Amino acid sequence: MDDKELIEKITREVMAKLSEGKPAAAAADKKPETPPATGMVPSDIASYIDHTLLKAEATAEQIDKLCDEAAAYHFASVCVNTSWTARCAKRLRGTGVKVAVVVGFPLGAMSGRSKGFEARHAIEEGAGEIDMVINIGALKSGDLKTVEEDIKHVVRVCGRNVVLKVIIETALLTDEEKVTACRIAKDAGADFVKTSTGFSSAGAKAEDVALMRRVVGPKMGVKAAGGVRSFQDAVAMINAGANRLGTSSGVAIVTGSASSAAY
Amino acid sequence: MDDKELIEKITREVMAKLSEGKPAAAAADKKPETPPATGMVPSDIASYIDHTLLKAEATAEQIDKLCDEAAAYHFASVCVNTSWTARCAKRLRGTGVKVAVVVGFPLGAMSGRSKGFEARHAIEEGAGEIDMVINIGALKSGDLKTVEEDIKHVVRVCGRNVVLKVIIETALLTDEEKVTACRIAKDAGADFVKTSTGFSSAGAKAEDVALMRRVVGPKMGVKAAGGVRSFQDAVAMINAGANRLGTSSGVAIVTGSASSAAY
Repeated sequence: MDDKELIEKITREVMAKLSEGKPAAAAADKKPETPPATGMVPSDIASYIDHTLLKAEATAEQIDKLCDEAAAYHFASVCVNTSWTARCAKRLRGTGVKVAVVVGFPLGAMSGRSKGFEARHAIEEGAGEIDMVINIGALKSGDLKTVEEDIKHVVRVCGRNVVLKVIIETALLTDEEKVTACRIAKDAGADFVKTSTGFSSAGAKAEDVALMRRVVGPKMGVKAAGGVRSFQDAVAMINAGANRLGTSSGVAIVTGSASSAAY
Repeated sequence: MDDKELIEKITREVMAKLSEGKPAAAAADKKPETPPATGMVPSDIASYIDHTLLKAEATAEQIDKLCDEAAAYHFASVCVNTSWTARCAKRLRGTGVKVAVVVGFPLGAMSGRSKGFEARHAIEEGAGEIDMVINIGALKSGDLKTVEEDIKHVVRVCGRNVVLKVIIETALLTDEEKVTACRIAKDAGADFVKTSTGFSSAGAKAEDVALMRRVVGPKMGVKAAGGVRSFQDAVAMINAGANRLGTSSGVAIVTGSASSAAY
């Protein structure tokens, strides 16, 4: 079975299992934060980058540096854990750089209501984007209702002004499961699907980005994250269909970009 | 500086930094769930074991098996992520096995209010024990007030009936930081300190268990978790001062125990 058939087959199955199958009104209403994928490398790659620092032992000083770099290089956002939300929002005020926070991270096995609370509290503290992890175990168990309801807990608190990215953690999924997860995220009203947490056995792969883009279509976001370390990595992901990049190597990527302008 | 001096020095510093330094009333009032450490291997090692399955991709079927094994072998608890709380509570009703859940897991960098919510919701769904991760980044930043307040968010929802274990993630800490974290956890009213999440660069080490036991004294719990895979590992941890063990190898440990009764 080729990719197209697989996507169509799984879309039918997901629709049937979740019965409602309503179109994703919330996603359609929201303004896209980055241009849709064109397969072209943008002249300003910085605007594609979520400048990311998620390790447990990150210090306040390191978080402040992350914010200052994001402001200096005009990255799309800083991506941090929720205990840093207020600090980052304060430091980035007026810079145009958003605060993106991770929710239910990195395992995704936190209760859906807790994901909703964590997202809501972060939004109150100034988060403009939420990167949540799906309930991978529920997906593996064939419990698609729980996968959907879990995402909707966060969709509801994001409303129309906060961008929601749904991390499917490709390293742990079969191709069928990747398609299913993207389909559910799109129908639930998310704005982006995202490949990886960066804490599992592997990060973003171009072929996964391409598959995810084919599932969600041209209007929804696809974020590649995990292992994106160089300008060349970034270009490969964008060419595969990504319109946002999660990386802790943002400065190296834009520096590489500047120094290889002929690329 | 030897261990005793280090512990005394850091205790004074923590007390001074947190100013209040009130005694831990909540911990003293709560009944210990397992006997205090004696350095002796118990005849029934099963009662020391939190039967653990925390990986992101764990399925409903695997969680059910975990519960059934815990009931069959009379383990202290099953230790799971919060999306499984209600399922485990239902399956374990009447068995005497408790549901322990992890909170802010495994990074500990989730906002304190969200940890409090995640714990409260899990308790409402039937959790009897909470294993929370400290805010490691705040500790590394010297922001002990945040470390303390973070724990207190969960202490408040646990009250007197729910056991609270505080994971300090020894692999990421200096000895000074280990002592500081244990001291704050004890003063905040936690019931146990716990070595590790099992998701960082290393798990429990006997010398860390011994250090933690010396800091918290004989009446508080010390849980060794991460890398405890055999009866011999379990015995080493108990001899070092642990009175609870977190492991996914509980069945192997009790089987090893039965087959080596002369040990």
